[in-house]
Amino acid sequence: MDFIAETTADGVSERHFTLGDVPGVLWTPADATGPRPLILLGHGGGQHKKAPGMVSRGRRYAAACGFAAVSIDAPGHGDRPRTEREDQFSARLRELMAAGEPVGSHVALFNAALAAQAVPEWQSVLDALQESGHAAAAGPVGYWGTALGTGIGLPLVAADPRIGAAVFGCVGHETLTETAARVTVPVEFLLQWDDTLVPRESGLALFDALTSPQKSLHANAGDHMAVPRFEAASAERFFIRHLAPA
Amino acid sequence: MDFIAETTADGVSERHFTLGDVPGVLWTPADATGPRPLILLGHGGGQHKKAPGMVSRGRRYAAACGFAAVSIDAPGHGDRPRTEREDQFSARLRELMAAGEPVGSHVALFNAALAAQAVPEWQSVLDALQESGHAAAAGPVGYWGTALGTGIGLPLVAADPRIGAAVFGCVGHETLTETAARVTVPVEFLLQWDDTLVPRESGLALFDALTSPQKSLHANAGDHMAVPRFEAASAERFFIRHLAPA
Repeated sequence: MDFIAETTADGVSERHFTLGDVPGVLWTPADATGPRPLILLGHGGGQHKKAPGMVSRGRRYAAACGFAAVSIDAPGHGDRPRTEREDQFSARLRELMAAGEPVGSHVALFNAALAAQAVPEWQSVLDALQESGHAAAAGPVGYWGTALGTGIGLPLVAADPRIGAAVFGCVGHETLTETAARVTVPVEFLLQWDDTLVPRESGLALFDALTSPQKSLHANAGDHMAVPRFEAASAERFFIRHLAPA
Repeated sequence: MDFIAETTADGVSERHFTLGDVPGVLWTPADATGPRPLILLGHGGGQHKKAPGMVSRGRRYAAACGFAAVSIDAPGHGDRPRTEREDQFSARLRELMAAGEPVGSHVALFNAALAAQAVPEWQSVLDALQESGHAAAAGPVGYWGTALGTGIGLPLVAADPRIGAAVFGCVGHETLTETAARVTVPVEFLLQWDDTLVPRESGLALFDALTSPQKSLHANAGDHMAVPRFEAASAERFFIRHLAPA
């Protein structure tokens, strides 16, 4: 793991790194010394590690919660080379949407293909952070990611017992139901009640499939991209409850 | 409206009152002078105005949020005379539960009968508080109540434009769907995902029926009575967002 740049602003240290082909960024409180919760941030489809929603969450977790947070580019996203797979996915997605056809299966298959590559990448990043002795990786670990971030995060959380709490959402059950049944950690799950991309029943079915004894569905009125801003603060409180109880 | 007793503890003033046949209690910050949000607290079936969940919410709204809160006994509950209606309801409810039969319609019809009487009572209490010139009734008004508290609160909020935000939940759509369609204010709606009294689909249908452009469903794993404690704090933030924005 190579740390290639570091800046500090408003009490938050931001460090860019690469691990093999995977570029990432780590946020910590600037004065951080001891172990603290680490939140893995999984961006949505077409986004990247420093999309505004990732940066704002990373900085907020560090500044307001005293956590560390790490974000990486998913395969074919951000600074990583875009492949034919991404181009074909996007072209077909546009076709389906223009035709008013359901996109759930198309998105789910693409997410699953990315997840097969991205899950071991996330695990390697977590390994490397822990092996480096970085204090940011010595505490409990959470995962936050919706849409593609859930498509990758669900199999990651199901596979890796180091992750103790997760925020998911905005994705349906296609290809993910069996994986969800292997998730047992506390989950906060976001669903948009009027989502035109993810049918309501499909999102409800995915929430239902989670085995987690502690799971909360937050369904808000509005379309796919209209998750209310107050859900960001709710996710912070969720992670504090489960990863840093007073 | 006759105020019959007042005590102050931990910075919260608690005043008992009667309005005609209806006994109630008003909580305010002990040092309250100006207008502030007022939360109407509707208790659940078999409970009463000073059930632990009502007292803790009333005191918490006053102490932590600077709000006023008022709770009254529903017809046949608390200090009000229990009638044959309540006895018949309870006996039949026990029969249905012992036989493993669905209770939704039975509960809904009972709640609707109580609501026909309780809605004008709540409106009279609000009228009287406002006419008395009490500062606690000069600000925006919210409503909190689940189960029977929603059975009464939904028609109240649909009927009374003074109420600007409401927390409902733990009840199904029977008899309430048309009323819910007349609710347009922001709503936070609680649903227990494994509720053995209220079928999941019935609760989801009631949430769906609300016309409110801003509505949030909080569905938590667990049975009817297992609403997580953190939902109380979520309701406080909901009321602060809508009734007392910074």
